[in-house]
Amino acid sequence: MPYFDAASAVPLHPVARQALLAAVDEGWADPARLYREGRRARMLLDAAREAAAEAVGCRPDELAFTPSGTHAVHSGVAGALAGRRRVGRHLVVSAVEHSSVLHAAGAHEAGGGAVSEVPVDRAGRVAPGAYAGVLREDTALACLQSANHEVGTEQPVAEVAGECREAGVPLLVDAAQSLAWGPVPGDWSLLAASAHKWGGPAGVGLLVVRKGVRFAPQGPADERESGRAAGFENIPAIVAAAASLRAVRAEAAAEAGRLRELVDRIRARVASSVPDVEVVGDPVRRLPHLVTFSCLYVDGEALLHDLDRAGFSVSSGSSCTSSTLVPSHVLKAMGVLSEGNVRVSLPPGTAEEDVERFLEVLPGAVAGIRERFGAPPAAPAASGEEESLVVDALGRRCPVPVIELAKVFGDVPVGGTVTVLSDDEAARLDIPAWCEMRGQEYVGERPADQGAAYVVRRTS
Amino acid sequence: MPYFDAASAVPLHPVARQALLAAVDEGWADPARLYREGRRARMLLDAAREAAAEAVGCRPDELAFTPSGTHAVHSGVAGALAGRRRVGRHLVVSAVEHSSVLHAAGAHEAGGGAVSEVPVDRAGRVAPGAYAGVLREDTALACLQSANHEVGTEQPVAEVAGECREAGVPLLVDAAQSLAWGPVPGDWSLLAASAHKWGGPAGVGLLVVRKGVRFAPQGPADERESGRAAGFENIPAIVAAAASLRAVRAEAAAEAGRLRELVDRIRARVASSVPDVEVVGDPVRRLPHLVTFSCLYVDGEALLHDLDRAGFSVSSGSSCTSSTLVPSHVLKAMGVLSEGNVRVSLPPGTAEEDVERFLEVLPGAVAGIRERFGAPPAAPAASGEEESLVVDALGRRCPVPVIELAKVFGDVPVGGTVTVLSDDEAARLDIPAWCEMRGQEYVGERPADQGAAYVVRRTS
Repeated sequence: MPYFDAASAVPLHPVARQALLAAVDEGWADPARLYREGRRARMLLDAAREAAAEAVGCRPDELAFTPSGTHAVHSGVAGALAGRRRVGRHLVVSAVEHSSVLHAAGAHEAGGGAVSEVPVDRAGRVAPGAYAGVLREDTALACLQSANHEVGTEQPVAEVAGECREAGVPLLVDAAQSLAWGPVPGDWSLLAASAHKWGGPAGVGLLVVRKGVRFAPQGPADERESGRAAGFENIPAIVAAAASLRAVRAEAAAEAGRLRELVDRIRARVASSVPDVEVVGDPVRRLPHLVTFSCLYVDGEALLHDLDRAGFSVSSGSSCTSSTLVPSHVLKAMGVLSEGNVRVSLPPGTAEEDVERFLEVLPGAVAGIRERFGAPPAAPAASGEEESLVVDALGRRCPVPVIELAKVFGDVPVGGTVTVLSDDEAARLDIPAWCEMRGQEYVGERPADQGAAYVVRRTS
Repeated sequence: MPYFDAASAVPLHPVARQALLAAVDEGWADPARLYREGRRARMLLDAAREAAAEAVGCRPDELAFTPSGTHAVHSGVAGALAGRRRVGRHLVVSAVEHSSVLHAAGAHEAGGGAVSEVPVDRAGRVAPGAYAGVLREDTALACLQSANHEVGTEQPVAEVAGECREAGVPLLVDAAQSLAWGPVPGDWSLLAASAHKWGGPAGVGLLVVRKGVRFAPQGPADERESGRAAGFENIPAIVAAAASLRAVRAEAAAEAGRLRELVDRIRARVASSVPDVEVVGDPVRRLPHLVTFSCLYVDGEALLHDLDRAGFSVSSGSSCTSSTLVPSHVLKAMGVLSEGNVRVSLPPGTAEEDVERFLEVLPGAVAGIRERFGAPPAAPAASGEEESLVVDALGRRCPVPVIELAKVFGDVPVGGTVTVLSDDEAARLDIPAWCEMRGQEYVGERPADQGAAYVVRRTS
């Protein structure tokens, strides 16, 4: 049963499993104590810190273990902002950061701080030079991910780190998705990562703060981990995390090459075998194991469900039919289609035949859902005469508004318009995306009694 | 090699080890995902929550798993204070709480809040009724431990919970030391605990917030654990923690009886076989497995070191010669001797013969250190003629100031005084304690050029 959601979590690496078992027996005591069980725990902790620091490319005393990647990000952002409080309270983030970074930014804003978001292009990448443009006199911190968790696009971290260094602003890199594949290049100041993404156990994150970076830990005082991560150290998990990082790095180059080819195959075959699909993210400068695509007229959750029944565990960055009804902020920032979104992220060791079987199953699964939703055929047939039509899709959720638009689109002549009334937040993103895919003109939106009215002009 | 520091951490319970291994294989995926690996992880998490809630005596939806007991306390205190911000910013804690509670109180004070400390008696217990006396119109939260981590004294939680309930103030109970032995009685509002104290793995704490208690989680938003504990859930460790709690509870009644007798034996034999020793904490209303005593004229760290060399891992609540040079806040609040402090906390399964061997080794270890430090014999010999003497112990650390006092004490006649000059913070606690142990009069202290001058009158 193939599991293709490595970007969420991967099973414990066999080396990590061994290390965890050994360290459960040897490393359970309090490393702050001076008796032999404490000294043994301390030695294990020190050795794990050295191994992790070597993999990151930092000094051991720059690296603290946190209870999760989310904690590393939250503590890192809060501590760096507080450390430069005198400089100002301006924070810069990219528009496609992980929610842990955006939530930390939200908390900063709620506390009276200022936040600027750097936009991305259609591939999900910030432009080199874009950070230099928004850094200000009062900028305390900038954040940029090493690679995007939803679409796999690599960010120009080294260039942005250079821009920040020139402006005297520390850069925090969220390296959660890339640390398994190699160290983060460039002259960054802080780094956060999460062990369960590289085959380590849950419960371990990394926070690296380079020497010389002003940092003031927030929250109640605590003497553990240089005051940067409160609470009793989770040494067995830390030992397993460090062992796993070492092990995946030893296999990284070979495995990256193999998975990169499998992902290239998925990118090409999805585009050719599934009608009305948009494969998103940078095709070249990307994580080796991750690809995302969106399927027009498809309810993403229904597709994930059908793929699960067919034996494939995949995920969706977008959750336009989940409880929140908000489309993925990443796809939104990229301006690409968000409906029917599927993220495939291959764990190390993924078998070629599992990928092949997925590619065989996918077109039928997509077609089945389109049929269930009554989606129009791939090319709209012309037959209309009305100059303009209004479609009432109020109260209907993604992907219905776009399907209703497509159903009647052939009924207006070239030059005519269709206006879609919708109170679904996803429509704001998906109707313009449909226009781009179909080569039709998106005129714009205007407020309506309920929701908004989206106007599309037929151009061909 | 007997390990007698269960109050710090205990090795993983065999049942927890089994559960951890199974859950590492079955519970590594993201429980928020809908595919089978995610559903399986969710089921394990739900079952662990139900088991833990049953052991605590609460509803499953009142219980969140946190990354540590410290996190549970920090989040619980911050969330409860914020939830009642409109009522006021007054926080009540006992003087002998764990450092995680006192650090949370410190952070609250640094942020402009008010904190009242409830004193304890010589046994380390708050008086029933003492909380009612300090609760105010603007009291947002009160905190009380179920039992003290350094001296084992049980607190009157049910009575204090009643006082708080009457005043409409929520009570947060730090149950870290007692949850292995049974549920916390009374009508408390919040509860925090830590799995590695009950034979669970590190990396798991519990935060219980009763329905109806106003609670506003602080820090960046996160959808995990009802918004009360950010970051990817550590399901394997959570499963192991819940399994261990169930297992230790099944053995609790029998093991408590056995360890209680062993501790009674230690209390009696230490008092009779070691001269000038003070066994502290309540002898009856106490944790079954924990006893603390302080040895006059002894450097605690040297004693721990010698006991470690003799094969015994014990700990000290007090750390008067550690890097901080501050004597234990618990012993200070109790007004008992802090020097030469040893805490013995027996893990489940402790063998009687190991305790016997400890009791054989201890008197010699204490005597050896006293000899090394040149401590006076147990009963001071009278031979003096000076009416008053001054002892200069400036720059000397605990236990030297008390030893110097004792050396010359016999040189002044009954009615005469000895003045000790000392800049060691521990002297402020230990000189009055010496007076009480020796039945001499502690006159008081006055400021000196350096440190303080402590005056003692010979009465016998």
